[in-house]
Amino acid sequence: MPYVNVKITNEGATPTQKAEVIAGITELLQRVLGKNPATTVVVIEEVDTDNWGIGGEPVTLRRRRGL
Amino acid sequence: MPYVNVKITNEGATPTQKAEVIAGITELLQRVLGKNPATTVVVIEEVDTDNWGIGGEPVTLRRRRGL
Amino acid sequence: MPYVNVKITNEGATPTQKAEVIAGITELLQRVLGKNPATTVVVIEEVDTDNWGIGGEPVTLRRRRGL
Amino acid sequence: MPYVNVKITNEGATPTQKAEVIAGITELLQRVLGKNPATTVVVIEEVDTDNWGIGGEPVTLRRRRGL
Amino acid sequence: MPYVNVKITNEGATPTQKAEVIAGITELLQRVLGKNPATTVVVIEEVDTDNWGIGGEPVTLRRRRGL
Amino acid sequence: MPYVNVKITNEGATPTQKAEVIAGITELLQRVLGKNPATTVVVIEEVDTDNWGIGGEPVTLRRRRGL
Repeated sequence: MPYVNVKITNEGATPTQKAEVIAGITELLQRVLGKNPATTVVVIEEVDTDNWGIGGEPVTLRRRRGL
Repeated sequence: MPYVNVKITNEGATPTQKAEVIAGITELLQRVLGKNPATTVVVIEEVDTDNWGIGGEPVTLRRRRGL
Repeated sequence: MPYVNVKITNEGATPTQKAEVIAGITELLQRVLGKNPATTVVVIEEVDTDNWGIGGEPVTLRRRRGL
Repeated sequence: MPYVNVKITNEGATPTQKAEVIAGITELLQRVLGKNPATTVVVIEEVDTDNWGIGGEPVTLRRRRGL
Repeated sequence: MPYVNVKITNEGATPTQKAEVIAGITELLQRVLGKNPATTVVVIEEVDTDNWGIGGEPVTLRRRRGL
Repeated sequence: MPYVNVKITNEGATPTQKAEVIAGITELLQRVLGKNPATTVVVIEEVDTDNWGIGGEPVTLRRRRGL
């Protein structure tokens, strides 16, 4: 019954990669915590780099500096 | 003053349906908990089926199998 | 399959009231959007009034003024 | 190490304004709470006015009435 | 730089289990998406069974019926 | 009408500090984005250090090493 929300910047994750993240987290919560995979929900949100800040600035600006 | 976040897959909810969800939740919280509707916020987020996982796989794959 | 998060201040909602909120939102999403109630998740979070701000101040201060 | 999520309606915030919000919140949490800006994350989410309800109705309808 | 929020019912997860969840998700996002583990944040929230609804009712009631 | 959620570890923020965070964010969103402070909501969540992971481990373990 867990609910997991994964937020990442929208920098090209493919459907296959996202499916792997969903499968991997669901399996982890079953193995470690005994949670039922049938009712485990994983929601991935991809956020524009203008809208994601770290270190006080948007990721867009960091990427321009090669970070 | 409540804040409600509703996450659903983006499978065609219309503006009219979304307005009904907003009205219905606001009315419910007023009736059951006495919350002031004027300051009740409801935010609906529609998520791509590639990004919504249940049972360890994306909804996109489930839909292909007719689930 | 919807996921709904309800945040309210912790001012005495009873288990019965919370059960009514869960039932009411689940029913609403089934009726308006055709969502399967069996996999609809509703999570209620109760927040200390010191930690909930509106109008630029904590609810604790507003309550002291009778708001 | 704080994580801050800012939800606003998508009514034209510019990249510059969003950068100011990110910088301002990061600075505030450092000044008031002593939090390390290097690991402070701010994520801004812009929500369609059809999907944001207040007072029991979508912002789209309020905007039409000049609110 | 991902941010992951894991919500589970508060039914006795130990600090060791929670550390395993944190380590496992961080490793997964590095392996699948190439994310930097140093800035990956995982926040676990444990929710009272009165406040977690599925199938239109609180988990507390389901547990009483042995579900 | 913005909604802001601030998550921090529960390491002793006082009611006065939390009130400063609420006031500061509300003022910032008014000044930068023209948002109405009367309907700006700020919710602060304080998370146990066992439940907050960064760099693949709980903050509790980092604190023991003096980080």
